[in-house]
Amino acid sequence: MKERGLLIVLSGPSGVGKGTVRKELFSQEDTNFHYSISMTTRTPREGEVDGIDYFFKSRDQFESLIKQNKLLEWAEYVGNYYGTPVDYVEKTLSEGKDVFLEIEVQGAMQVKKAFPEGLFIFLAPPSLQELEDRIVNRGTESKQLVENRMNKARDEIFLMNAYDYVVINDEISNACDKIKAIVVAEHCRRERVEASYKKMVGVE
Amino acid sequence: MKERGLLIVLSGPSGVGKGTVRKELFSQEDTNFHYSISMTTRTPREGEVDGIDYFFKSRDQFESLIKQNKLLEWAEYVGNYYGTPVDYVEKTLSEGKDVFLEIEVQGAMQVKKAFPEGLFIFLAPPSLQELEDRIVNRGTESKQLVENRMNKARDEIFLMNAYDYVVINDEISNACDKIKAIVVAEHCRRERVEASYKKMVGVE
Repeated sequence: MKERGLLIVLSGPSGVGKGTVRKELFSQEDTNFHYSISMTTRTPREGEVDGIDYFFKSRDQFESLIKQNKLLEWAEYVGNYYGTPVDYVEKTLSEGKDVFLEIEVQGAMQVKKAFPEGLFIFLAPPSLQELEDRIVNRGTESKQLVENRMNKARDEIFLMNAYDYVVINDEISNACDKIKAIVVAEHCRRERVEASYKKMVGVE
Repeated sequence: MKERGLLIVLSGPSGVGKGTVRKELFSQEDTNFHYSISMTTRTPREGEVDGIDYFFKSRDQFESLIKQNKLLEWAEYVGNYYGTPVDYVEKTLSEGKDVFLEIEVQGAMQVKKAFPEGLFIFLAPPSLQELEDRIVNRGTESKQLVENRMNKARDEIFLMNAYDYVVINDEISNACDKIKAIVVAEHCRRERVEASYKKMVGVE
């Protein structure tokens, strides 16, 4: 029987660069975890593609999936729904493959309830000023939305204590290296390895 | 004030290749932890240099250091003393630098009592046959000693459950990569990062 895969959850304040880090990770050849695409009702940003960046859905479609229990987690955030379709996650983990989620902080807390054994990584801004600059430079948000997001971000940093790891997003490549190191290390954790190892070498 | 360094303890059964892995690690440029040289009363093997591979001491000298409480841990193993001089470890950790120990399993358990917050990595053989081959091929041990060591090894594999991580020494470079990933990951653990991060960004 194959060991179950790891569920890797990357989260952090809005604007910290979760999507950028995720894209960089999945452009690297030695990344061997599987990306679970999120679902959202928000408007696609320029360059975002349905089925690659997100599954873009209407509010009606999203609410119907909630009712059918087809979402591992979902949240309404600044007026839009975000969620994770559950089937892909369950199937991939049971095949012994690692699944990577990149989700908002509210959603991460729901996943933690369902999968406390998951690997929760908090992507943190190097400073609050840098976070504000990134949100403003994204250029897709009104001044009021920027302010809302900064207030949210302060609240979200408090939630850090529910995570296993903190990766500061000072440089995208640094952050990716650290995330990959965390996944390698977690696969070496004694609790995960001990039973199968002792069986393998015949020392039980 | 600088954060205290990590104490990294690499241990595992005799013959598993702890010394070889340690040498490879410290020949790599991106290894930035500090090696604490062990002390022993055993005869140097061919090529081993006093003050580089070990501090080689007489039994009288070693026993005098035990009495002076100058050893973080020590053990008698197959007729010889092995131990870790305490001063270097304490000084280096307090400077915020990571210290790396490569020690026998008995010694690792003593370090765990003194430093439960240390990082305990068990280097495991890919199989018991491979372990025996390595001990035999080393060519320094009599048939009786090989048998003693194999019996010890079986007992030592049981002690795996006191460790944080298990790294299987299938290939030296794989084992080194995993050990370095574990150290990177541990520096990202939320418990270590949270307080100083929140202080830094002014969210307290």
